[in-house]
Amino acid sequence: MIIIMRKNASETEITDVVERVKAVGFGVHLSRGVERTIIGAIGGDRAALENISLESAPGVEKLTPISKPYKLASRDFHPEDTVVRIGNHTVGGNDLWIGAGPCSVEGRELLLESAQLVRDGGAHALRAGAFKPRTSPYSFQGMGEEGLKIMAEAREQFGLPVVTEVMDTRDVELLDRYTDVLQIGTRNMQNFSLLKEVGRSSRAVLLKRGMSATIEEWLMSAEYIMSEGNHNVILCERGIRTFETATRNTLDLSAVVVAKSLTHLPVVVDPSHGVGKRAFVGAMARAAVAAGADGILVEVHQRPDAAKSDAAQTIGPAAFQQMMHEISAIAEVLGRRVPVSAAAHV
Amino acid sequence: MIIIMRKNASETEITDVVERVKAVGFGVHLSRGVERTIIGAIGGDRAALENISLESAPGVEKLTPISKPYKLASRDFHPEDTVVRIGNHTVGGNDLWIGAGPCSVEGRELLLESAQLVRDGGAHALRAGAFKPRTSPYSFQGMGEEGLKIMAEAREQFGLPVVTEVMDTRDVELLDRYTDVLQIGTRNMQNFSLLKEVGRSSRAVLLKRGMSATIEEWLMSAEYIMSEGNHNVILCERGIRTFETATRNTLDLSAVVVAKSLTHLPVVVDPSHGVGKRAFVGAMARAAVAAGADGILVEVHQRPDAAKSDAAQTIGPAAFQQMMHEISAIAEVLGRRVPVSAAAHV
Amino acid sequence: MIIIMRKNASETEITDVVERVKAVGFGVHLSRGVERTIIGAIGGDRAALENISLESAPGVEKLTPISKPYKLASRDFHPEDTVVRIGNHTVGGNDLWIGAGPCSVEGRELLLESAQLVRDGGAHALRAGAFKPRTSPYSFQGMGEEGLKIMAEAREQFGLPVVTEVMDTRDVELLDRYTDVLQIGTRNMQNFSLLKEVGRSSRAVLLKRGMSATIEEWLMSAEYIMSEGNHNVILCERGIRTFETATRNTLDLSAVVVAKSLTHLPVVVDPSHGVGKRAFVGAMARAAVAAGADGILVEVHQRPDAAKSDAAQTIGPAAFQQMMHEISAIAEVLGRRVPVSAAAHV
Amino acid sequence: MIIIMRKNASETEITDVVERVKAVGFGVHLSRGVERTIIGAIGGDRAALENISLESAPGVEKLTPISKPYKLASRDFHPEDTVVRIGNHTVGGNDLWIGAGPCSVEGRELLLESAQLVRDGGAHALRAGAFKPRTSPYSFQGMGEEGLKIMAEAREQFGLPVVTEVMDTRDVELLDRYTDVLQIGTRNMQNFSLLKEVGRSSRAVLLKRGMSATIEEWLMSAEYIMSEGNHNVILCERGIRTFETATRNTLDLSAVVVAKSLTHLPVVVDPSHGVGKRAFVGAMARAAVAAGADGILVEVHQRPDAAKSDAAQTIGPAAFQQMMHEISAIAEVLGRRVPVSAAAHV
Repeated sequence: MIIIMRKNASETEITDVVERVKAVGFGVHLSRGVERTIIGAIGGDRAALENISLESAPGVEKLTPISKPYKLASRDFHPEDTVVRIGNHTVGGNDLWIGAGPCSVEGRELLLESAQLVRDGGAHALRAGAFKPRTSPYSFQGMGEEGLKIMAEAREQFGLPVVTEVMDTRDVELLDRYTDVLQIGTRNMQNFSLLKEVGRSSRAVLLKRGMSATIEEWLMSAEYIMSEGNHNVILCERGIRTFETATRNTLDLSAVVVAKSLTHLPVVVDPSHGVGKRAFVGAMARAAVAAGADGILVEVHQRPDAAKSDAAQTIGPAAFQQMMHEISAIAEVLGRRVPVSAAAHV
Repeated sequence: MIIIMRKNASETEITDVVERVKAVGFGVHLSRGVERTIIGAIGGDRAALENISLESAPGVEKLTPISKPYKLASRDFHPEDTVVRIGNHTVGGNDLWIGAGPCSVEGRELLLESAQLVRDGGAHALRAGAFKPRTSPYSFQGMGEEGLKIMAEAREQFGLPVVTEVMDTRDVELLDRYTDVLQIGTRNMQNFSLLKEVGRSSRAVLLKRGMSATIEEWLMSAEYIMSEGNHNVILCERGIRTFETATRNTLDLSAVVVAKSLTHLPVVVDPSHGVGKRAFVGAMARAAVAAGADGILVEVHQRPDAAKSDAAQTIGPAAFQQMMHEISAIAEVLGRRVPVSAAAHV
Repeated sequence: MIIIMRKNASETEITDVVERVKAVGFGVHLSRGVERTIIGAIGGDRAALENISLESAPGVEKLTPISKPYKLASRDFHPEDTVVRIGNHTVGGNDLWIGAGPCSVEGRELLLESAQLVRDGGAHALRAGAFKPRTSPYSFQGMGEEGLKIMAEAREQFGLPVVTEVMDTRDVELLDRYTDVLQIGTRNMQNFSLLKEVGRSSRAVLLKRGMSATIEEWLMSAEYIMSEGNHNVILCERGIRTFETATRNTLDLSAVVVAKSLTHLPVVVDPSHGVGKRAFVGAMARAAVAAGADGILVEVHQRPDAAKSDAAQTIGPAAFQQMMHEISAIAEVLGRRVPVSAAAHV
Repeated sequence: MIIIMRKNASETEITDVVERVKAVGFGVHLSRGVERTIIGAIGGDRAALENISLESAPGVEKLTPISKPYKLASRDFHPEDTVVRIGNHTVGGNDLWIGAGPCSVEGRELLLESAQLVRDGGAHALRAGAFKPRTSPYSFQGMGEEGLKIMAEAREQFGLPVVTEVMDTRDVELLDRYTDVLQIGTRNMQNFSLLKEVGRSSRAVLLKRGMSATIEEWLMSAEYIMSEGNHNVILCERGIRTFETATRNTLDLSAVVVAKSLTHLPVVVDPSHGVGKRAFVGAMARAAVAAGADGILVEVHQRPDAAKSDAAQTIGPAAFQQMMHEISAIAEVLGRRVPVSAAAHV
């Protein structure tokens, strides 16, 4: 941490800051300019420094951190890419990973149809929501445990691992029993109780970026999960909130490359929520792969217009086929591939 | 709901939309222009309409809602201001309500000192965190239940109701026992499980605006709480996330007037998180009251530089006194008042 | 400037940066930590440093400026408040300054009526647009020079200085002849050619904040004007662009206090564009004065519903009277006043 | 336009709105629901409607436009893609177009080197700034007319058309003489005087998206240019301003597909300004082409670290080669191609 003192900071103020920095285990490097003194805090534990609130100490103008606030998630700490295993496939290595399915489980028959559709289309996992975070308390809230059971049946029948969202600390144990990947939704990216709880699970966690979260905050949320022992974290960019109203969110594809430069964790992209409009999903999936994403999470439905939630952004079977075809070809350009789904042989 | 069909929508597409609208209990008013047909869906339940995903029906260009998506929170539904009672004071009537205290409970002695400080300064409630939502898992996470017990002791000794944040559905019952107002923090504004859980409590709920929530989404979150039976909801504006980096957040004071025009619920303002810098807190508290806020929630500490969290935005005793003096005078200009705290007589 | 080198920066990279810094006239202070080296560039001219693009030099991780990029506009450079004279009144001292009038000059009779209305209401200047920046080329673009002549007539007849927007470098000379204050609109805040041109005028310049400008960029634009010799700059906050759609913009009142801490220039607020809805203008004007604004710029029209532009945010005579009454009372609370308009005696 | 009246709108208010709508040449379709009346304004000229400020008429709750505010730029009006010719190449057809070069002209020798570099790398045009919009008045402002002459020499020598920014209405004629494409920078996207002036030029115009402009506003700015007679407009996405600080801007690649669905004009992408960091430029160029962009505008310099402006985001010769190679391969996947530069034969 570099502490820049104000122009007119007194000798007492400088000494006081130096003492406080030393007291929490840091070495100090003092640099006195003509106008200002600058204090470098060297070594020591950044969190300890943050707990002493130097930013408001008398005479301090500003603090500039020089180390990252996350450790376990940091590429500095762990230079090689983390590869997360999900069933017979992996995320984060050379192979791309595709999770697809309807927004929510709407019934047994419909979900089994969906599972078959995405399996036949080449997906490596089935995504669907049993607990749905809806802006309105009057909207369809998901089928709950019954939905989980249906997903488990689909997994059994089609050999597809399942990804589903968890919204409540009290449900983690339940979902742990039925699913392969626990999804943390954008609205819960800083639900720290929930992050800690899934951090104690052994399931892989797909962590969506908060809709107004910086990349650093996103990595700090990954750190929450990892600090509880679960290192199987997959990051998912799904669009951020901006002033633009033509799309549901603004898909931030530079987040993929920036995040991958800072962390060893895999980064996938959800183009469906990213744009919110069916017609643009395929183009954004292509762009995500071209940018270097490790996978795609996409909403697919056999009759998208009839979907009970997110219908506007859900693509149908033909568009899914085209997307799979195009991203495979782009992956090849980059020396990667979309592997044949292990489920294809079930 | 008004459904605007595309220029080239076919007769079949129009008929199909009309049938779907009627099927969920709406009347239909058809308006055929030279170029486009517009369908008005009249009567019926908006949620039912949302569940049939008309926005993606063939031939539909866009939907324009004409009624609000919230009911219980709406001023249309409940024209008179809701007045929430907290101990011997109220929020939402002519009297302003001031909640003050440290960011977090840091120890017994410190909190009792704080309680005395804010009581003597004229506050009507004591705010402090026992469970702290921190960006980093390595930062001080609050004292937990021990902190709640200390708050209860401060309440007893100084006659001040206490406001504290709840972060986990599993903690609601615990907090219910110790506190007067349950606070939902900005990161949990769309933690729908938590909203429902506090909706089943009998405590007043202070609902902070999500840092990237629209005013409509904020009111929808209030609706979640109210739909479970708890109508004692206080809205709290605390700054939104923008591109500006000179302040921690951008305090949106127009949200006070806009929200009060749409809802009957009281709206208070937290200038501390709104700007994040001590020097600007007083000015923003004055501005909030001038804009028509029903109260102020402010971080105060006897030695702000030594606060364990949020030190940079915490004001000291003298600044608190000046703030109370100034907002009282501005309240009077608007025909309102900051009442003498009932706790003053304890 | 502090230059933080990467963890693994080589000795050659460090030496190279040191040489480049010295070459543009800076002294160097080297601080070698266990993991990183930090280079302080001391003295010298910040612009010179920016022109050598250190941020991309090999081995550099990041730069942290310690001095402000603006000089003439900086409070460090000029600690006392600048007071700008406009006719018989001033902006930036203890007195508040109110500029009011219709969005655009719509005709001679209408403008004279408006001038009388705002004069009688106590305004110190008449604002109106002759050249109008409209999003659509098909919208009313203003009356041009004819509008300026009408404004000059109103000035003559009612003794009110006039404020009007300049949009083209070629028009500065023309406006200089007819008006007292040249307004730079939000869309032109970084039209650097125009800033330089008004910097060579002797008229006061009212510089609106760009709708997505940081406070630092706003001050840099003021610096552009001042660097050409014109120090009579008034800053005007008018709302920034955020994700919120309930208001036209988000009025950033903390910008008033932040800007006034950084610069000696006066800061006024335009609540009309800030919220875009008539019903909320009065509350935001009150809040602006409570926050410490040096004045208010407001759209007023005798029959607001009939205004040719910005009708939705234009207030009528009664609302203007009430606003003037309320802000006067709030100004008094803060030891300031809204002086009787000199024009009242004309 | 659909006009939604308030719940309690009186008969007089309704009649009044109907009369005003008819008076500007619209037909009216009245729809009376149980609670509200809705008025459809049919036919007529949208601009005329906007000039009567219905949004503030008594009894009106809100307006919903049903037609687009732009005409000449609209795909409804002109369904086939516009193909703009620049020298021997085109933008907007099946071929991709690559403009490359240094941020600014820094000297004769350097620019000729750059021209050779980008010509040899396969670019179809040379980009460089002679007039530079810099945040600080103390930064290098470009070489002005001397820079234009150097660009003209490079054009002559290497057969590359040149693209350069115009910042002042008074300079349009001058740039017209020296350059092939007039660039409107992000800060001038709503400099309406400048838009009109380049609209009267015969040169192609490259219109960068304003850093906080919606896609609709961007198209309205294109409409300004086209309404003066110049239909050779190329749109350029270059990143928008968001809360994220890890990148200079947030490159909005969905803007490419959204814009192309709304307009027939070509859309190119500037990844250099979009991310602001050299290491991420290549990935974003790939993503842009995968999303469907018609071309790439990129900052390239033979010794990027020594560039006088924008060094951090400028790529060197090797990265440029790799980018060209990768985007060619991705273009092929989509059935497009990066044609061999005609300049290669010069």
